[in-house]
Amino acid sequence: MDSSANKPFKSALKVNDGIEQPPSVNIGAARHFSKPGRKLLASDTYVGGIINGNRTVLSQAITLIESSLPLHQEIAQTIISKCLPLSGNSVRIGITGVPGVGKSTFIEAFGKHLTSQGRKIAVLAIDPSSSRSRGSILGDKTRMEELSVDPNAFIRPSPAAGSLGGVARKTRETIILCEAAGFDIILVETVGVGQSEIAVHSMVDFFLLLMLGGAGDELQGIKRGIMEMADAVIINKADGDNLNRVNVAMAELRSALHYFPPTESGWQPVCEACSSITKKGIPKVDEMIKTYVEFTRENGYFDKRRLQQSKQIMMNVIDQALHDHFYHQTDIKKLMSSVEAELQQEKISAYVAAQVLLEKYFGGGK
Amino acid sequence: MDSSANKPFKSALKVNDGIEQPPSVNIGAARHFSKPGRKLLASDTYVGGIINGNRTVLSQAITLIESSLPLHQEIAQTIISKCLPLSGNSVRIGITGVPGVGKSTFIEAFGKHLTSQGRKIAVLAIDPSSSRSRGSILGDKTRMEELSVDPNAFIRPSPAAGSLGGVARKTRETIILCEAAGFDIILVETVGVGQSEIAVHSMVDFFLLLMLGGAGDELQGIKRGIMEMADAVIINKADGDNLNRVNVAMAELRSALHYFPPTESGWQPVCEACSSITKKGIPKVDEMIKTYVEFTRENGYFDKRRLQQSKQIMMNVIDQALHDHFYHQTDIKKLMSSVEAELQQEKISAYVAAQVLLEKYFGGGK
Repeated sequence: MDSSANKPFKSALKVNDGIEQPPSVNIGAARHFSKPGRKLLASDTYVGGIINGNRTVLSQAITLIESSLPLHQEIAQTIISKCLPLSGNSVRIGITGVPGVGKSTFIEAFGKHLTSQGRKIAVLAIDPSSSRSRGSILGDKTRMEELSVDPNAFIRPSPAAGSLGGVARKTRETIILCEAAGFDIILVETVGVGQSEIAVHSMVDFFLLLMLGGAGDELQGIKRGIMEMADAVIINKADGDNLNRVNVAMAELRSALHYFPPTESGWQPVCEACSSITKKGIPKVDEMIKTYVEFTRENGYFDKRRLQQSKQIMMNVIDQALHDHFYHQTDIKKLMSSVEAELQQEKISAYVAAQVLLEKYFGGGK
Repeated sequence: MDSSANKPFKSALKVNDGIEQPPSVNIGAARHFSKPGRKLLASDTYVGGIINGNRTVLSQAITLIESSLPLHQEIAQTIISKCLPLSGNSVRIGITGVPGVGKSTFIEAFGKHLTSQGRKIAVLAIDPSSSRSRGSILGDKTRMEELSVDPNAFIRPSPAAGSLGGVARKTRETIILCEAAGFDIILVETVGVGQSEIAVHSMVDFFLLLMLGGAGDELQGIKRGIMEMADAVIINKADGDNLNRVNVAMAELRSALHYFPPTESGWQPVCEACSSITKKGIPKVDEMIKTYVEFTRENGYFDKRRLQQSKQIMMNVIDQALHDHFYHQTDIKKLMSSVEAELQQEKISAYVAAQVLLEKYFGGGK
């Protein structure tokens, strides 16, 4: 739990991160939302705070997005729809790599490079893998000592564990709010396991895979499918004794990338090395992403991909809802057990089983 | 097209492959199915022929499965449901590997090893990638000179191109017929590209990946996901000058396989080498599969997996049907264009877009 969410909004407002206070805050208007122990504000108050870059208000609005309470969700959806017209003006960057590859130190170094130029970055995370590890990525802010106190940076740990779809939705909605709050670079970190990379890939403009030199493909546990999604492979820890191994790995990866199927964007994925300690290579990552954005804005892919992503999410949500509706029908549940028994006894084929259930569904309620 | 399908059944019956003629054939009963230029039989006649191991009848029944004509499909489904109780008694083996890895020569050598022990094998294929390449895998039977004239082997090329789902369904249904015809080993070959391995993996008991020594992971174009599905990796062409490279590759792969996530079956994937020319290692592949079948029959995974596969197919078919029904509604089609326009202009989020469409669907027709 974000502890600030439990504070009354009035006291929270005192912590305004040195950023101008939202002028339109109207505590009175929030009264009819209030519940014992937790004060809610009118959605316009949140929106005003977000637009004015008040990070405490932003945090509280994100907490509403992450909440499962219907009242919180209702306000959250209103906030999102009001922020939508102001969103979309950032570059969204996904970052993945297995544990130990140095994602946090890379984000710290890369983030500081960006904020030192006056750019505003938001760092989000997706880690639906475990409820035990809540906050395991990005939660330990001591790993990002400088960035966590940088006024141009906003760091938010992964929402509490739930279905990947749920976590991904919350992160997508958080991106909208961060963009409305004026952050122009959104970094979305994911643990390098499971399906979360696919979720992150579906919400970013540029997908960056961090690797180590000399550890061997196998040892790094990177799935080939992940490599194929990458717009850039960055070999981290290119410093000290590692340099030789990094150079060998870079040569191998550059050669390997040539064998990959061409990307839809027309972009040829690149491989570079960097050190989060010496900072060597960090500005190059920034330049590379700028080149990518220019390239894809010019050929139209940038906007096309965002629209594709939206449509894909829409279709996934619809498919899931249709699926849930089907399997929640009492008729179907009853029939299912007998159909499954017949399947198990190999009395009917899977295709016939599907047909029987579909006929019941469309013949009955529909 | 399988040319035998165009022959009248009466003349086809003369070619009985030296196998006992079906006793229950009743040409007269087929008359009401007949169409100009193509004579159809009663489903029982096909079933009788299949059970008696008549390969011409089996071929004709498979042609009905592959046909898109409603009348053919109707007979095909009746044949399948009658064959189902007699099916399931084979070991289904999936074989993949990129072009050039020697799949056909391996199947020839492995197949001859099996038939020489009196086992009956059916060789099927999935290649939905291209309508141009129909028959490109297994079509060129000269690549399997000995197996194609072996009375204990039945070779059937990939069905004509269509959706992967369609092609996979036809192959699954063909497996049922082949099992009813008494084939106790079913080999399903796939080209090593695209999604077809996943389809094959979903219909077999054992999944075998063929590789080459010394070509390098990248060069072989094997997706890591494919490697993770493999129950065994067989390095082919372990002969002559290749031997050293094969041994190096085998050591590397064995080490790599240890880093893979444990399989659900509890089986530890193995890596072996073989030569389709010298036949060295071929009996070992057979033994390995026998060990796997024993192991998974004992721990219950063998049957569990087949049931899982059936349920998964059933669910996939249902999901696809729900999807199609939704998108074919006139209401939805009309609303879709305006919703997509709002998505494009970033007026609504993908989640809201989905909600609007779902409310129309369930609020309207349902």
